Amino acid sequence: MKRLAILGSTGSIGQSALDVVRAHPDKLRVVALAAGSNANRLREQAAAFDVRVTALGAETGTEGLIAVATHPDVDMVICASSGTAALEAVLAAIDARKTIALANKEVLVMAGALVMAAARARGVAILPVDSEHNAIHQCLHGRRREEIRRIILTASGGPFREMSAAALADVKPEDALRHPTWRMGRKITIDSATLMNKGLEVIEAHWLFDLPASRIDVVIHPQSIVHSMVELRDGSVIAQLGGADMKLPIQYACSYPDRWEAPVARLDLTEVGRLDFHEPDFDRFPCLKLAYRALEAGPSHAVVLNAANEVAVASYLEEKISFVSIPRVIDQTLDAHTAVPVTTLEAVREVDRWTRHYSQNVARGLELRV
Amino acid sequence: MKRLAILGSTGSIGQSALDVVRAHPDKLRVVALAAGSNANRLREQAAAFDVRVTALGAETGTEGLIAVATHPDVDMVICASSGTAALEAVLAAIDARKTIALANKEVLVMAGALVMAAARARGVAILPVDSEHNAIHQCLHGRRREEIRRIILTASGGPFREMSAAALADVKPEDALRHPTWRMGRKITIDSATLMNKGLEVIEAHWLFDLPASRIDVVIHPQSIVHSMVELRDGSVIAQLGGADMKLPIQYACSYPDRWEAPVARLDLTEVGRLDFHEPDFDRFPCLKLAYRALEAGPSHAVVLNAANEVAVASYLEEKISFVSIPRVIDQTLDAHTAVPVTTLEAVREVDRWTRHYSQNVARGLELRV
Repeated sequence: MKRLAILGSTGSIGQSALDVVRAHPDKLRVVALAAGSNANRLREQAAAFDVRVTALGAETGTEGLIAVATHPDVDMVICASSGTAALEAVLAAIDARKTIALANKEVLVMAGALVMAAARARGVAILPVDSEHNAIHQCLHGRRREEIRRIILTASGGPFREMSAAALADVKPEDALRHPTWRMGRKITIDSATLMNKGLEVIEAHWLFDLPASRIDVVIHPQSIVHSMVELRDGSVIAQLGGADMKLPIQYACSYPDRWEAPVARLDLTEVGRLDFHEPDFDRFPCLKLAYRALEAGPSHAVVLNAANEVAVASYLEEKISFVSIPRVIDQTLDAHTAVPVTTLEAVREVDRWTRHYSQNVARGLELRV
Repeated sequence: MKRLAILGSTGSIGQSALDVVRAHPDKLRVVALAAGSNANRLREQAAAFDVRVTALGAETGTEGLIAVATHPDVDMVICASSGTAALEAVLAAIDARKTIALANKEVLVMAGALVMAAARARGVAILPVDSEHNAIHQCLHGRRREEIRRIILTASGGPFREMSAAALADVKPEDALRHPTWRMGRKITIDSATLMNKGLEVIEAHWLFDLPASRIDVVIHPQSIVHSMVELRDGSVIAQLGGADMKLPIQYACSYPDRWEAPVARLDLTEVGRLDFHEPDFDRFPCLKLAYRALEAGPSHAVVLNAANEVAVASYLEEKISFVSIPRVIDQTLDAHTAVPVTTLEAVREVDRWTRHYSQNVARGLELRV
């Protein structure tokens, strides 16, 4: 019986995680739940799964999240909450030797070196829940590091995959929020439309699989059936395929190194019929290029990328700046940043604070005149 | 240093195997070569690779093949020769505890139970060189048996993939011999056009991976990029992809459990652009259905399927029967066969002899009147 804590239980990943628990009552038990602000749903979940330990971020702050993540009854922490509070909770959970199932990109984008060093020191496994990294994990299982030539992350291309550069200037948030395949939150949906989501995944992959930017490629694959691939040293490519159901990677992380029957629809490739692949267009989607630039520039640049993107997307969602201004905000903020060491949580926070302040100003300068 | 014997060294697989040896002089050495009848090329190969032990089947018969396969200096036997002589040589090599890299379908189709039982008893590994089974082997590496739900063999669909049933009645051998992706011998090319090749692979997969017919599916995939797939118990699908170069699976078998750099072109999916998948049409290509029928009926039916197919294809290549008569010959011969145990080589030979005699008569009855 694996005993779980779920951080972000009322969100979409959190709810899918509870579906997985429901399907495997003999193998999984939830013992602790944390949510941001949805008190009602958290209460319902706690009642339905007989969970005694809960924390609502809005009331308890980071302390509550940490208490849930480090509770002595917990074997594995599914981290699906966002922001820096999640980062602190993950670090505390690693310290308490909990296995981590990670569904939060910022944790590694902001503090990959910190988190991976702590995990290594404590002998803690970080299991990726993002469908792409989960796919890579599955493809790499049983293979040695020296067999890997590169990894290939697939990207749906977002809702504006085929839109001209001119049309992109005018797209409204409500257009972006109609994502083709996965149902997700507002911020991550915009990240998917700008391809920043894929950029953050490139950085995440760098930390998870210890590969340089030059060995992490992105391929546009609109059907989102191939979740990602690994090219091995002899040129052979191993891919993981599946339907667009987050329960699959969540369950894989929960069951690993076992694999259980899953309550998900079976993939029938003859029904899908066709899989397409093409190069990402860095000109129309500069956010992906910015992520590679940040990864190559160093860890503090990744913190800047992440925070500037959050500020820019928030401005866009408030219809203050245009879609094409999102990369401009990030670009100008990256330009203004000089690399600093980010080997402590405080150093990460400091860069994050500076970035938010600076990029707010940049965004203000790009505001639309109505 | 792995020391190899190559059975069938002058054929297409044999020559590719020598290319692999040439690329890895520090890891592989050929110490014995056997060919069917191409004495000149065998002599050249022996000179080029400084091989002292050679056998020409036309001169030495099965004895020569067995001497090459069991030579004390040999660690691994690459079996790329065809027919029952190869089967005897493989059984002798297993007895002598040589690792087997198997590129010959008949060996397992005719005597899967015999060969796999001998390999188990001697602790000998049978590594598949066929690109499909090699792909499955790669997908399964590091996974447990109970994780497997089914395997999915991909098939190019052959040159007549889109031809109507009416048009199929009239196709000439020279049309069939233009195969879309792989360059192969005449017999296997016709098997690829009738889909019997895939049917034989289904039977081969049954023996290699110990799965019933109901858990081995075939999907038409014209681009031949996905070499095959495995569906795991949670619905996740693992696929192996690569270019159409036989050197890749040959090298994988030679290097296993290691994996080496390979002198093959890199797969660029964005250049391929598109991968298609659809159901095989059992009505237009009844040979595939006949193979499933034989597999379900029992081991002696697989011997009948294989021998009747050889007879039918030979008649077709001599333009004595039509393309659509190939499955008719096999069907009628299977109808006439009653299952017998084939637990000895002699029993296999007996069924094979009966089948050739019987199916010759059937083919004669279906001869075209010119």
